[in-house]
Amino acid sequence: VFLTLMSLFDPGDEVLVPSPRWGTFTSQLTMLGARAVTVDTSRTEFLPTVEQLAAARTSRTRGVLLNTPHNPTGAVYPAELLADIADWAGRHGLWLVLDECYGDLVFAPARHVHPVQRVRDCVERVVTIGSFSKSFAVTGWRVGYLYGPRPVIDAAARFQTHLTSHAPSVLQYALVPAARGAADDFVCTTVALLEQRLALADKELADVRWLSHRRPGGAFYLFLDCSQVIGRRYGERVLDTGADLAALLLDEAGVAVVAGSAFGVDDHLRLSLTADEERLRTALARMKEVLGRVE
Amino acid sequence: VFLTLMSLFDPGDEVLVPSPRWGTFTSQLTMLGARAVTVDTSRTEFLPTVEQLAAARTSRTRGVLLNTPHNPTGAVYPAELLADIADWAGRHGLWLVLDECYGDLVFAPARHVHPVQRVRDCVERVVTIGSFSKSFAVTGWRVGYLYGPRPVIDAAARFQTHLTSHAPSVLQYALVPAARGAADDFVCTTVALLEQRLALADKELADVRWLSHRRPGGAFYLFLDCSQVIGRRYGERVLDTGADLAALLLDEAGVAVVAGSAFGVDDHLRLSLTADEERLRTALARMKEVLGRVE
Repeated sequence: VFLTLMSLFDPGDEVLVPSPRWGTFTSQLTMLGARAVTVDTSRTEFLPTVEQLAAARTSRTRGVLLNTPHNPTGAVYPAELLADIADWAGRHGLWLVLDECYGDLVFAPARHVHPVQRVRDCVERVVTIGSFSKSFAVTGWRVGYLYGPRPVIDAAARFQTHLTSHAPSVLQYALVPAARGAADDFVCTTVALLEQRLALADKELADVRWLSHRRPGGAFYLFLDCSQVIGRRYGERVLDTGADLAALLLDEAGVAVVAGSAFGVDDHLRLSLTADEERLRTALARMKEVLGRVE
Repeated sequence: VFLTLMSLFDPGDEVLVPSPRWGTFTSQLTMLGARAVTVDTSRTEFLPTVEQLAAARTSRTRGVLLNTPHNPTGAVYPAELLADIADWAGRHGLWLVLDECYGDLVFAPARHVHPVQRVRDCVERVVTIGSFSKSFAVTGWRVGYLYGPRPVIDAAARFQTHLTSHAPSVLQYALVPAARGAADDFVCTTVALLEQRLALADKELADVRWLSHRRPGGAFYLFLDCSQVIGRRYGERVLDTGADLAALLLDEAGVAVVAGSAFGVDDHLRLSLTADEERLRTALARMKEVLGRVE
């Protein structure tokens, strides 16, 4: 992502980023002297509308940075929306940067599509970022890829030469079979497992006080709305923010969740579904117990 | 190196870099909006003097970036010189960034030392960069390390979080034994092998027309002075630059060398000693043959 942003944007440029967003998006733009202009999607099911993007556009806007399936909300952009955004971005000469790291992890009926499937012309204005990390459970390997117009990819490669040279060669070789499809079964199994965990979490969270969530269309997180907890108390502790609740769950339930503030929204928590069912069940039971004592 | 430079320097800052230098040093500073001010060492045995550094210092100078053992020249900074530079840098409030990636690959009587061994005070102004790549022959793995003052390391770690997260975990685990010394024998063997190859290259190059070199104190390159070839001809080809000669050697001898222009000096070539003796012997014989036809 950094190499792409470095290749496309200059200091002073503005880039539209739907919020909640992965915090690194805004940090990377800041590191480059560019500015992330966030577009609040918390009232539009975590999907931006073209009208919202248009309202945020200024003469300095150079691009839109989208992530679908979305971390942390699990939102999957519908094909029509992506096509509309690509169309709009194209009309205004904006780059569309698309992070589809979780593209393989989608739960029916949601479907991950690339905007070029609908809007052929956008191929010259879209740079797409993928990763082996999530599909093949190798998050620690740090191997991903880019595709897009040749000049952008060439520029990114030149920057990469001076930053990290390349992704480790030994890991690139190790991933060749996966890139050729040898691990597609593994991906199917992973999606099925995640769907089971989602069902479990839906069931266990149904009667947990104060928390609610929207079923994710993809990725492997639950983005829990904890706005009803804000301002309440747990014994001596006052839960003024989502971060206070995250700290409480860590201390009292031994469950680590990420406070929504990391994504630009304070009244949510991100719960990961990467632990196995038994651990997930235990974690949810403990969360329930602790939340039961919130007054 | 990039994380260190990013942590220490701001746009507009000047950093002194002895030249010849690894091209990435200057590119990285440019990427950060800082400026590499090169200090020519081609007449001082590829080592800068404190006087040269002092002459290049301005009110915008914030640091000195040294590499020892040196790529591409093989120069190893003597302990006294490093101490003098550290002392001088300290007096002027400059950061000393020390790239010792080749620190384990040194040929007696040269010895690699760290300036803190002589100048205790400099510990707060020196950031040192090391790598597993060269010592343990894992150049493709891209795993290195930093040490220096806590605030600098913390800043570098924060930047790293947003760039690459971390070096691949699986490769970090794989290198733990090497970090603990389990591969020290391998390093000794490597140094002995490189010394044999150096002796071979010295012998084979002794009667090669037009080329001369200084015996390297460390690293695994020969930095060949080809200034006498510049302006000569090979058949129809005019050898106007070191890059022309490098292209000729690639085309006619099948030997890949890096033109000195990559390091900021046009009349040199960098020959790597990483190939085994037989290949090296063949390469040198072919180079000799091609150079024999230069008029």
